Amino acid sequence: MTIQQISSFAAGEWLAPGAGARNIASAITGDVIASAGNNDLDVQAMLDYGRKVGGANLRKMTFHDRARMLKAVALHLQKNRQAMYDLSFDTGAIQSDHLIDIDGGIGTMLVFASKGRREMPDGHVYLDGEVEQLSRNGTFLGQHICTSLQGVAVHINAFNFPVWGMLEKVAPTLLAGVPCIVKPATNSCYVTELCVRLMLDSGLLPEGALQLVSGGLGDMLDRLTMQDVVSFTGSADTAMKLRSNPVILENSVRFVAEQDSLNASILGPDAEPGTPEFDLFVKEVQREMTTKAGQKCTAIRRIFAPENTVQAVIEALSARLAKTVIGDPRLETTRMGALVSNGQKRDVLEKAAIIGQEAERVYGDPENFTVDGADAERGAFVPPMLFHCADPDNAQRVHDTEAFGPVSTVMGYRDVDHAVELVNKGMGSLVASVITHDSDVARQVAMGAGAYHGRIYFNNRDSMKESTGHGSPLPHMVHGGPGRAGGGEELGGIRGVKHYMQRTAIQGSPDILSAIGGTWVPGAAEIKGPAHPFTRTFHEVSIGETMYTEPRIVTMEDIEHFANFTGDTFYAHMDQDAAERNPFFPGRVAHGYLLLSFAAGLFVEPNEGPVLANTGLDNLRFMKPVSAGDSIKVRLTVKKKTPRNEEYGEVRWHVTLTNQDNEMVAEYELLTMNAY
Amino acid sequence: MTIQQISSFAAGEWLAPGAGARNIASAITGDVIASAGNNDLDVQAMLDYGRKVGGANLRKMTFHDRARMLKAVALHLQKNRQAMYDLSFDTGAIQSDHLIDIDGGIGTMLVFASKGRREMPDGHVYLDGEVEQLSRNGTFLGQHICTSLQGVAVHINAFNFPVWGMLEKVAPTLLAGVPCIVKPATNSCYVTELCVRLMLDSGLLPEGALQLVSGGLGDMLDRLTMQDVVSFTGSADTAMKLRSNPVILENSVRFVAEQDSLNASILGPDAEPGTPEFDLFVKEVQREMTTKAGQKCTAIRRIFAPENTVQAVIEALSARLAKTVIGDPRLETTRMGALVSNGQKRDVLEKAAIIGQEAERVYGDPENFTVDGADAERGAFVPPMLFHCADPDNAQRVHDTEAFGPVSTVMGYRDVDHAVELVNKGMGSLVASVITHDSDVARQVAMGAGAYHGRIYFNNRDSMKESTGHGSPLPHMVHGGPGRAGGGEELGGIRGVKHYMQRTAIQGSPDILSAIGGTWVPGAAEIKGPAHPFTRTFHEVSIGETMYTEPRIVTMEDIEHFANFTGDTFYAHMDQDAAERNPFFPGRVAHGYLLLSFAAGLFVEPNEGPVLANTGLDNLRFMKPVSAGDSIKVRLTVKKKTPRNEEYGEVRWHVTLTNQDNEMVAEYELLTMNAY
Repeated sequence: MTIQQISSFAAGEWLAPGAGARNIASAITGDVIASAGNNDLDVQAMLDYGRKVGGANLRKMTFHDRARMLKAVALHLQKNRQAMYDLSFDTGAIQSDHLIDIDGGIGTMLVFASKGRREMPDGHVYLDGEVEQLSRNGTFLGQHICTSLQGVAVHINAFNFPVWGMLEKVAPTLLAGVPCIVKPATNSCYVTELCVRLMLDSGLLPEGALQLVSGGLGDMLDRLTMQDVVSFTGSADTAMKLRSNPVILENSVRFVAEQDSLNASILGPDAEPGTPEFDLFVKEVQREMTTKAGQKCTAIRRIFAPENTVQAVIEALSARLAKTVIGDPRLETTRMGALVSNGQKRDVLEKAAIIGQEAERVYGDPENFTVDGADAERGAFVPPMLFHCADPDNAQRVHDTEAFGPVSTVMGYRDVDHAVELVNKGMGSLVASVITHDSDVARQVAMGAGAYHGRIYFNNRDSMKESTGHGSPLPHMVHGGPGRAGGGEELGGIRGVKHYMQRTAIQGSPDILSAIGGTWVPGAAEIKGPAHPFTRTFHEVSIGETMYTEPRIVTMEDIEHFANFTGDTFYAHMDQDAAERNPFFPGRVAHGYLLLSFAAGLFVEPNEGPVLANTGLDNLRFMKPVSAGDSIKVRLTVKKKTPRNEEYGEVRWHVTLTNQDNEMVAEYELLTMNAY
Repeated sequence: MTIQQISSFAAGEWLAPGAGARNIASAITGDVIASAGNNDLDVQAMLDYGRKVGGANLRKMTFHDRARMLKAVALHLQKNRQAMYDLSFDTGAIQSDHLIDIDGGIGTMLVFASKGRREMPDGHVYLDGEVEQLSRNGTFLGQHICTSLQGVAVHINAFNFPVWGMLEKVAPTLLAGVPCIVKPATNSCYVTELCVRLMLDSGLLPEGALQLVSGGLGDMLDRLTMQDVVSFTGSADTAMKLRSNPVILENSVRFVAEQDSLNASILGPDAEPGTPEFDLFVKEVQREMTTKAGQKCTAIRRIFAPENTVQAVIEALSARLAKTVIGDPRLETTRMGALVSNGQKRDVLEKAAIIGQEAERVYGDPENFTVDGADAERGAFVPPMLFHCADPDNAQRVHDTEAFGPVSTVMGYRDVDHAVELVNKGMGSLVASVITHDSDVARQVAMGAGAYHGRIYFNNRDSMKESTGHGSPLPHMVHGGPGRAGGGEELGGIRGVKHYMQRTAIQGSPDILSAIGGTWVPGAAEIKGPAHPFTRTFHEVSIGETMYTEPRIVTMEDIEHFANFTGDTFYAHMDQDAAERNPFFPGRVAHGYLLLSFAAGLFVEPNEGPVLANTGLDNLRFMKPVSAGDSIKVRLTVKKKTPRNEEYGEVRWHVTLTNQDNEMVAEYELLTMNAY
């Protein structure tokens, strides 16, 4: 059998393992299948190459360019996923684990591609929050922007998800315009290496955007600057060593950590045996214990049930665990594969023994279990092990010992406050779940335990058909947790992209803010176009292009006519006495919708042209009532342009309605779709 | 002369200084005026008291309760500010410095009070971002929430702003519902102590919300947990010591640092002598050098001018500095007071000497300058000192040595790229400013230097009348910077409040999300009220209360009538052939505003009642066109309620328009003001 040589990709070149390379064994057979480790990597050259070549190339692209690139890369990986599946079995993972790792990683990339197009501009500056009014007359304003960091992101990943673990970090990093240096855990780095090869060979990434270290990082971390980011996933011990690095501390290098976590699941007090929630709970716990043989950062380590339901939970869960076929991952009948290595198996058994000091093992015997189609002695197999801790208040190890395998402990609680107290004893976790159909229980847990958890997952009969699972970090939602879990945050939609960008508070005149943000700001220069802006295509019309309409007088006849036509005979429009009693109005006033409709009548260019449709309206505020006899006129300015597909893009218009005294009557943003 | 005994406020009691107390000298006379330092503080009792008493009390209050409390406290301080002014002179500060420190601190508190009311709910959960659609049918959704941390915030503050430095941290912390332990720098702690006394004596803060350590913190930091926060302002050396604390690292205790910063100001290439920008630049630089005798984290340390303008800048600046009267801060004619202590003076002179190794001193001689009304030998006086560095590319000390006094270095640049390169040599700063009337220059600097700076301040003839100054951190904008500046962020509006809260990703059914967020989510239970919701007051109407209207058929006559009445004869409504050519429409369709108006006609209750006005509309999206013959009907649901004043509050309604096939035609949020 040949031993696969796992290379690094450094400064544009593939480098085979060096002399001191480490052997990697199959999780199933224990045989050496690969070898990795370059002792002669020039890490400074890698950093320079990433910063200078990769960063420059990525920063030339817009957010939309990078989003399109992510989509193309993801689709390329999707086409080639079978090759990654084939390799992954040797990590101990079964086919359904591959779906989480490989398809999950590709899916995460696709979500970032989609969010990048929908939620970010087709430019280089991301606007973070609204314009802040810092002055009375609006000549001096504030706006937060995010721009790409000019360094590299060093991603140090765990062994359990060689593909997802990489892609969930690479996707937001590249979208941010920052090059990546990926360092997978050695145990499963051969899967990561294949995935990196596929991405590089696709030719879809610009030069320097992605490098790979198979093996050790050398002294790379000692060479980081304030423009670099480290994103670490792994054990608390390693995290502690890395985050104590004086260079990281001195340069305030961003250090995102996702480390140990004693995740918990709570069975609600309402979820008695016989309810759909009870069955759901047993199913989710079993799945979270055994998926990826329990080697998931988000796996359920602690199971909390009402004291009088503990026995029923143990029985139901044991029955379900008994059906979990353990065996060779390549067999279709296998429901749980192996741990990643025999070293990992020893560690899990040691940790289980520590938990055993405070809890009784009620299911699973590592000395006595069946393995289908593989040698239980040579492979890294363990059975699911369920413990019961009878005195969780006085226990400590069950709350702080993470056995990174199919190991979990059932504990009873007296009431919801007690459950919250126990769940918080983990001192910070990635996720807690609550299976309850009682919204008050949900709220009580959220308020009591929210500060201790990065994510709280609720499930019940209403959501169970569509729920995504306790253990699944979704690209839309923050992944990470406080305290023991490392204090870092990943993913969470565009939040995850911002981890690789610098937020800068910009202050200045409207013109300056407009120029920097690529978005017109009230008070900035108005451009008079050569024709009505509705006659100009998406590409023709400029940011700041403005038209003013003639005024139109609003009469009492208009108000009454509109009321009768639409049926909106609200007293403020129709009853002089009642309107006068109202704190907002001087007497009868025009309908807000009448003003909007008249405004459109004033600014619309009726003939067929590049404006395809009015698709929406945002942030409408009525500032001053309009009485009969008042007039309104409209200012319409192009605020922002966002391409949407091959044929048209969205134009966001800033609109103000003013009266005969030039007082603002209403302000809003109008959305149209314009042909290119 | 009596020596003032500066106390701590610990676990509910004032404790006078202990045996090892430290003497504090007047910055003006050098005489000992105060003594501080408790060697017998029970720091564990302080932490317990804060966490258990203060935290519990604050978390019972809503965001609006806490915002009102902040406002009341700020107004109380405002009434009593003269007493703080009186004490502050001895720190070396002049009256205009007091305005920054004392009035600035109070103003910051007022902004947080106002933002808390306007931008946060009257509840306990802050919703961070929008609902995430995690499932096709919407039975499983995501939402990020922020809840109060359950620990304490330890604020370690610098000597320069004994009041602002405290209040800019206390305001967001209390608004977040987290108790504070404030530890001011000893040199000026007597001013902070008075401010704390005023706040505590006001009776406006709940028990345990605020404690004070005058002197050392003992081993408090070794006792922190993952629910606590440290917010440090001071030197990089101290920050490094604190952030290396193993307990802080192991527990992932949030550590916010604001430390050294070589802030810069750039004179734009367009801002030649004779332009308003040139004069503005000289004025701002002089002010930033001399305000608070240069002891400002944001003071300008590096001055960049086009090479051919350097000489003119030096001359103009020297002339202006020559007019800066140095003297006893109590004299009205004094324009610059003293440094805080003779120790600080020694430090500034040492740092200036280091800068002098690479730059020539072109203005200010510490051996020869005039001090009005005080003894220059006994007080901590220094003159403003201006240096000129002729070779900034090969200099290092001028880019990394922060002389925390009125010391700054002028350097020339060749072009904007060169200016960006030089300004970034500070390796992370709180603020850079650019005085330019050229938006392209502004954009170039923002893109090139944004990643290195927490704030970039632009100013020119358009904004100079209303601009707030290079050196002023505003509560609305982020204060903090990457790299050398510490990597922390403070302020920035509600962002600053979130530093003291935990963000948690919540996943669950619409009902569960609604219950936790106090905001109705589409798909959650709809409540049928006892009457039309417009007849019910703000307090009567419930979240989730829903009405359905009858349908109304939209006819071609309606469309034509509306077009003619409003003047909106857009082709999509009036021209069948053109509408058919449009990618969005099957043929002529109804106006969006017609649909909105008819919808209002369907749901409005016309008679006088608790609904006072329709004040606005958000997030309107048209989903499906409505052709003649289609009908529309409306669902109106109470989404959210926010009290606004003593008489009425805002109700946010979620509205959907559906057609005869129950397809969604439009969706929006409507705002009304409702009487209590």
